[in-house]
Amino acid sequence: MKRIKVGVIGAGRIGKVHIENISVRIPTVEIVAVADTFVEEAKKVAEKFAIKSFMASYKEILSNREVAAVIICSPTNTHAQYIIESAQAGKHIFCEKPLDLSLEKIRTVLDIVAKAGVKLMVGFNRRFDPNFAKVQQIVRDGKIGIPHVLKITSRDPEPPPAEYVAASGGMFLDMTIHDFDMARFVMGTEVSEVYAKANVLINSAIGKAGDVDTAVTTLFFENGAIGTIDNSRKAVYGYDQRIEVFGSEGMVMIGNNTPDNHIYYNANGLHGPLPLHFFMDRYTESYAIEIQAFINAIMNDEDLPVTGKDGLMSVAIGLAAKKSAFENRPVKLSEIL
Amino acid sequence: MKRIKVGVIGAGRIGKVHIENISVRIPTVEIVAVADTFVEEAKKVAEKFAIKSFMASYKEILSNREVAAVIICSPTNTHAQYIIESAQAGKHIFCEKPLDLSLEKIRTVLDIVAKAGVKLMVGFNRRFDPNFAKVQQIVRDGKIGIPHVLKITSRDPEPPPAEYVAASGGMFLDMTIHDFDMARFVMGTEVSEVYAKANVLINSAIGKAGDVDTAVTTLFFENGAIGTIDNSRKAVYGYDQRIEVFGSEGMVMIGNNTPDNHIYYNANGLHGPLPLHFFMDRYTESYAIEIQAFINAIMNDEDLPVTGKDGLMSVAIGLAAKKSAFENRPVKLSEIL
Amino acid sequence: MKRIKVGVIGAGRIGKVHIENISVRIPTVEIVAVADTFVEEAKKVAEKFAIKSFMASYKEILSNREVAAVIICSPTNTHAQYIIESAQAGKHIFCEKPLDLSLEKIRTVLDIVAKAGVKLMVGFNRRFDPNFAKVQQIVRDGKIGIPHVLKITSRDPEPPPAEYVAASGGMFLDMTIHDFDMARFVMGTEVSEVYAKANVLINSAIGKAGDVDTAVTTLFFENGAIGTIDNSRKAVYGYDQRIEVFGSEGMVMIGNNTPDNHIYYNANGLHGPLPLHFFMDRYTESYAIEIQAFINAIMNDEDLPVTGKDGLMSVAIGLAAKKSAFENRPVKLSEIL
Amino acid sequence: MKRIKVGVIGAGRIGKVHIENISVRIPTVEIVAVADTFVEEAKKVAEKFAIKSFMASYKEILSNREVAAVIICSPTNTHAQYIIESAQAGKHIFCEKPLDLSLEKIRTVLDIVAKAGVKLMVGFNRRFDPNFAKVQQIVRDGKIGIPHVLKITSRDPEPPPAEYVAASGGMFLDMTIHDFDMARFVMGTEVSEVYAKANVLINSAIGKAGDVDTAVTTLFFENGAIGTIDNSRKAVYGYDQRIEVFGSEGMVMIGNNTPDNHIYYNANGLHGPLPLHFFMDRYTESYAIEIQAFINAIMNDEDLPVTGKDGLMSVAIGLAAKKSAFENRPVKLSEIL
Repeated sequence: MKRIKVGVIGAGRIGKVHIENISVRIPTVEIVAVADTFVEEAKKVAEKFAIKSFMASYKEILSNREVAAVIICSPTNTHAQYIIESAQAGKHIFCEKPLDLSLEKIRTVLDIVAKAGVKLMVGFNRRFDPNFAKVQQIVRDGKIGIPHVLKITSRDPEPPPAEYVAASGGMFLDMTIHDFDMARFVMGTEVSEVYAKANVLINSAIGKAGDVDTAVTTLFFENGAIGTIDNSRKAVYGYDQRIEVFGSEGMVMIGNNTPDNHIYYNANGLHGPLPLHFFMDRYTESYAIEIQAFINAIMNDEDLPVTGKDGLMSVAIGLAAKKSAFENRPVKLSEIL
Repeated sequence: MKRIKVGVIGAGRIGKVHIENISVRIPTVEIVAVADTFVEEAKKVAEKFAIKSFMASYKEILSNREVAAVIICSPTNTHAQYIIESAQAGKHIFCEKPLDLSLEKIRTVLDIVAKAGVKLMVGFNRRFDPNFAKVQQIVRDGKIGIPHVLKITSRDPEPPPAEYVAASGGMFLDMTIHDFDMARFVMGTEVSEVYAKANVLINSAIGKAGDVDTAVTTLFFENGAIGTIDNSRKAVYGYDQRIEVFGSEGMVMIGNNTPDNHIYYNANGLHGPLPLHFFMDRYTESYAIEIQAFINAIMNDEDLPVTGKDGLMSVAIGLAAKKSAFENRPVKLSEIL
Repeated sequence: MKRIKVGVIGAGRIGKVHIENISVRIPTVEIVAVADTFVEEAKKVAEKFAIKSFMASYKEILSNREVAAVIICSPTNTHAQYIIESAQAGKHIFCEKPLDLSLEKIRTVLDIVAKAGVKLMVGFNRRFDPNFAKVQQIVRDGKIGIPHVLKITSRDPEPPPAEYVAASGGMFLDMTIHDFDMARFVMGTEVSEVYAKANVLINSAIGKAGDVDTAVTTLFFENGAIGTIDNSRKAVYGYDQRIEVFGSEGMVMIGNNTPDNHIYYNANGLHGPLPLHFFMDRYTESYAIEIQAFINAIMNDEDLPVTGKDGLMSVAIGLAAKKSAFENRPVKLSEIL
Repeated sequence: MKRIKVGVIGAGRIGKVHIENISVRIPTVEIVAVADTFVEEAKKVAEKFAIKSFMASYKEILSNREVAAVIICSPTNTHAQYIIESAQAGKHIFCEKPLDLSLEKIRTVLDIVAKAGVKLMVGFNRRFDPNFAKVQQIVRDGKIGIPHVLKITSRDPEPPPAEYVAASGGMFLDMTIHDFDMARFVMGTEVSEVYAKANVLINSAIGKAGDVDTAVTTLFFENGAIGTIDNSRKAVYGYDQRIEVFGSEGMVMIGNNTPDNHIYYNANGLHGPLPLHFFMDRYTESYAIEIQAFINAIMNDEDLPVTGKDGLMSVAIGLAAKKSAFENRPVKLSEIL
């Protein structure tokens, strides 16, 4: 069996997810090294999955000649630097979203990647969720005709700590960015204008940190379709992730997944299960399919399913939304890009 | 049994609905006269429901001393005039929506009604639909905590004729006006700002008539909550009327009604019924409950469940939405009112 | 408009349902007389619906020459006699189920009806329920291929009083009889053998009255298909009426109706409405469609949708089930018929 | 980390499932040997999961002193012999269902296991499916009160080959046996009597092999509750596995799992996904939880969640059902046991 060797940079929560999925599900890949500045974390995961080396510095991975590809799972503010160095070292790259919060820096990164001739995939895992993928497939197959209206509901079960909020770039770039990518993915057309109305309704500490916790965003697409995304940082009933696309010939929608599908009736009514609580439960499968898709593209030298441009555009829409919410007016993408 | 005598002005489609509901379901009411400029229509319905008199002119009803209340089902451009004359004749009034398309005229009407001391109810029938009423009840009972986000989907099965569009005041005042009223009804707070993004995606004739057929409207409420309404004039799968209210302690949603609830499986998948096709099927029950509520309030001298102010506000929001869509900017209600 | 005159015998609960449906929905029918041994009941309903005569004795209706058809809603033990006299008086007959509890008497009745050349319809209203009718239509249209398995769940919200039980003929002839008719209706083939397992689990008074309150009945059909019916006299969550037909090419199922379709989420789970509480709520529409179907068949001289044979067969299956439960062995219909 | 060493006997489909689940998910277990008479199969799986030895004969596993437990996944007719020898070798045992088709042999096996003082778990994996487990939990917690009626629907997507049927012991012992175990599991009481009505409706070759392909089985429980199981060997829409328990205080039901939860509307209706096609898709998770439960019980010296008695009882009910179908009469378990 042909095998490919990869290194993982960052052994935090999401790094561990990728390491486990690769180890358990992708026999064609060998993880040869894992790096984390918290070297104890790297050691732990290396031992658990029989990875032969671990280290504090990602540079050791980049200088390892047998490593064909790197999986970047480090904090956002390191992404640009690590991608650039990885590209220059001739490695294919999988990088968690967002590439960066600055469009200028992202453009620089993409240029360097292009010149290096390596592949770069951005970790928009939801595209690989069987539910979202099904929506996109039905739209792409023309089953709803021409898309007219997009609806995305995206609510977290609980807000992040205020300190996280401060460094995250704000809700639009941290949370809604997934929805912006999903919007482009399922509609198959670009966003041309954004209007975001946002507020602090859940936690005033979030407001003090300069962020919002509740928002409704209108997207206007190049083909004339209109979208709406509603976000909340706190749905007491759990992670609420739904999407609907309405078109000239039909409509498709998907809902949440639940731990089981029981329905219980008693004298007070019908009762059923809550949605899976958060993204690690809901999107478990999507992470596995995502990393497999990256490996497949590398091994077969095929186009990647999520590109650097996707990483750029989602940040651009996020910045437009932020500006729109701040200035309370519609903002054209052309103002941002 | 105490009985009340009413007259009906306008024997078109909706007039007939009210006449049948009253005749069949409300034994405490006697319809004593029906007026329509197409007197043949008045005659037909009078005979069918054993109404003792019919005539071409509404004035005969207003001068009839035994008539305690009138049901106004004539075209929109007659509403203001008929309400004014009815109030001056001392009749209680049920009037179909909208009261008028001019806020100034509506204000004049409401002043005259107030001075006359009669009751005026506006025909927002959806408030009486068991599904919508249940949503409002759950929100009002505090079961979802403080409302944060409102979502309304409202799609017609087919666009009206272009000539109708021209006279209707446009989609926001003709179709979305129901959703604006519903937004105020379920949220229990006033709208303070509107942003509407609209387009012509279904029928270019609608665009030529100066109207739109697809829209997404953002509502900002006085309590800080945010709403989104998506409208389309043509859902090929039928009348699509759904609502969801999300709050600090939960969420409530309602969906469409169907003619039956069968589920059919074959080798190709699961298949089920379409929503009831249009408003006369979906809202059948709501019309009956609505007119009963009007009668009850009259007979018991109680507050009306839908007031003249409700009629005013829904038009104001509609005008703000229209202005917003035209100028592509958020419009505060204070600019309109 | 051609009109037909009918008389109603029995002004109890179900009689009132038929009277209201005819009065309100069927303009081609005039109810000219209503008879009830409790003449006050007859008087009340006559006044409410402007029926010109009421009386204590059904004989006055039968001797009324202008009456073309009678609706028999009196107690079961009067059905046979009233049908016979009605037939001999040349009236068409609608009779509530069951025709009688004795097969011999039913056969006599059917013979007399046949000789008199009048039409006789038995009130199996559920056949006209939009849900059940849809199942039958899908099966009849061949969409599930050849039917192999039938499942009926039929549970009442609360047991009848013990004194009612004693006179009812027992659960199989009082309650399950509807399911037996439904089985024949949707499967389009006859039952050849029955096995019923029953018990008293809800109320020992029912057991003392010689009846059961919980049962599972297996039906074997002439075409080789197998069915199962589960019954309970007490479902605390309301009237539970579901059916499923499985065949060589697919499956169709229907569920309960609810007063609304809201879904409410809070931190404890998903919550929804209970089924409509009992048959007067769930089958409201079916009663109206049923009596219309009777009138249509009379006026157009067409075949009736539910015949005397249907009345006979459902009792036969009920008697077989009773015998089977008593003797704990499968009972062939040929032992009964 | 404390680790336990196990050997696997039988490297066919289900053996591979257990090997993968243990290797990937249970770090506390090391599979040290895999045996299969088709030694190539043993070799393949041993290499894939880095198992250090493989062999043709199970005896090598039993004589391996470091092996604490064996997983028996060989054909049914070898189960009894392998369990006996494993017990005598002092190994704990996990064995696929059924233990054997002869009650006498099963009794002998259980006696020897008891004397040997080892643990024996039977592979009724469905007990560990999150849906079925939820039903059992709700019943056990008393949320439906006292169970009165059990309904199980269990349909395969396609019949097995006729040659398989011949050796399988027939549908009741091969397919329904899972439902019999589920009945005991969720009801928490024993079956005392069985009536099975069966037929050949799908494939006459199955009939020629002396088996049936469609059945409805009535179960009578010691506490007076009644159950019904309907089986088909061919549901064109996929694997149909549902259960419902109805009791004095409520009802709980679970349905099928689907690959995604999309709903698609077009002008012809609503459309959704089919159930997961067969048991390897539907019960994937249950196999992993099951084997983990076995390992946990061994490592912590706790009671097993599925015992030898469970293996005995399900076969006994299966034999009673077979006898009942053959003789067309209810059969008491006491006739069999």
